[in-house]
Amino acid sequence: MNSTTRPPRRPRPETLARRERILKAAMATFGTRGYHKGPLTEIADQVGMTHAGVLHHFGSKDQLLLEVLRYRDESDVKDLEGQHIPDGIDLFRHLVKTALLNAQRAGLVQAYVVLSAESVTEGHPARDFFVDRYRTLRREAGDAFRLVCEERGIDAPETVDRAAASILAVMDGLQVQWLLEPEKVDLAEASAFAIEAIMAQVLDPREVL
Amino acid sequence: MNSTTRPPRRPRPETLARRERILKAAMATFGTRGYHKGPLTEIADQVGMTHAGVLHHFGSKDQLLLEVLRYRDESDVKDLEGQHIPDGIDLFRHLVKTALLNAQRAGLVQAYVVLSAESVTEGHPARDFFVDRYRTLRREAGDAFRLVCEERGIDAPETVDRAAASILAVMDGLQVQWLLEPEKVDLAEASAFAIEAIMAQVLDPREVL
Repeated sequence: MNSTTRPPRRPRPETLARRERILKAAMATFGTRGYHKGPLTEIADQVGMTHAGVLHHFGSKDQLLLEVLRYRDESDVKDLEGQHIPDGIDLFRHLVKTALLNAQRAGLVQAYVVLSAESVTEGHPARDFFVDRYRTLRREAGDAFRLVCEERGIDAPETVDRAAASILAVMDGLQVQWLLEPEKVDLAEASAFAIEAIMAQVLDPREVL
Repeated sequence: MNSTTRPPRRPRPETLARRERILKAAMATFGTRGYHKGPLTEIADQVGMTHAGVLHHFGSKDQLLLEVLRYRDESDVKDLEGQHIPDGIDLFRHLVKTALLNAQRAGLVQAYVVLSAESVTEGHPARDFFVDRYRTLRREAGDAFRLVCEERGIDAPETVDRAAASILAVMDGLQVQWLLEPEKVDLAEASAFAIEAIMAQVLDPREVL
């Protein structure tokens, strides 16, 4: 930063509190109705504001969506030391814990499921966000695998990248089935099982097919 | 069937051909834009018909959606013997082949990803379809696991149901990542890896976490 640049003015606490209330309302609306079908007026109503008032804080509906997604990701790591995803074996333990936590917050999971899938459609405003998010998570999971391999004295196999993508994928896919039939699919147990299965196949591969 | 009931009249070949063209157009539109944002007029335009003409064949947009989903599922098994999903180890081989096939048909995969995720939203017309679809597939995958266990002389472990859900989940989740970055995620390879990982963990479980 240029030393003569003034630091940006900190938003007042009331402004921050209002932004957070809008983000929570938007997450609820996008989660239950999707982004395209979830109207700004419904979000504004939930927090006792006007449509214009919400836009004053976030500029546009697209921008609000991106802030909602960032807010959701931050809330996932805010209780972790250093406020970021851990390394090595702890990353995988963190993912198991995240699945357990997700089983207690269907609204948040629903918002994520709907928005991540919608993002593959033409010109969706969250497409770049999700491309970047998955790329980052795959890299972090891949690095964690390499570290675990090193610690256990084995050469990291070429399956590490596939396994990194698969671990994220199985957590996502189980969320859809769990949202559709929560009494039939145990999100936490199934996620933990699949994460361990994929790790075991990286560390000690077996052919069964 | 009551023996005096007349069989329903077979639709004429032209009618069947026109229905199939509408289904393909609807799959393309719902896949690129989602169900809610994909207009019937765009579907009608693709096949040179009017909005009313499309409704004449399918009754409603919701009904068209359900027919699209069934058409997609049928196209998956139409080249298989008996036209249904195989048993035992062949079911898992069929899933690996399906992932390989899916990597050649992004439009179809996109329609499925978007519609299955949208179906978790309030009052979505395809919700029951997907609840039923996943329930059936989990049961079939679970039965296949039990058969493979029996053939290999092992008691089917309690992880079979988790594994059945996980195999479907990882295939779904990888589709999202592949649609977002096809050059970074190899859908066929990653799916085959994850399916084998989950099978191995059922047949011979290991603790690594």
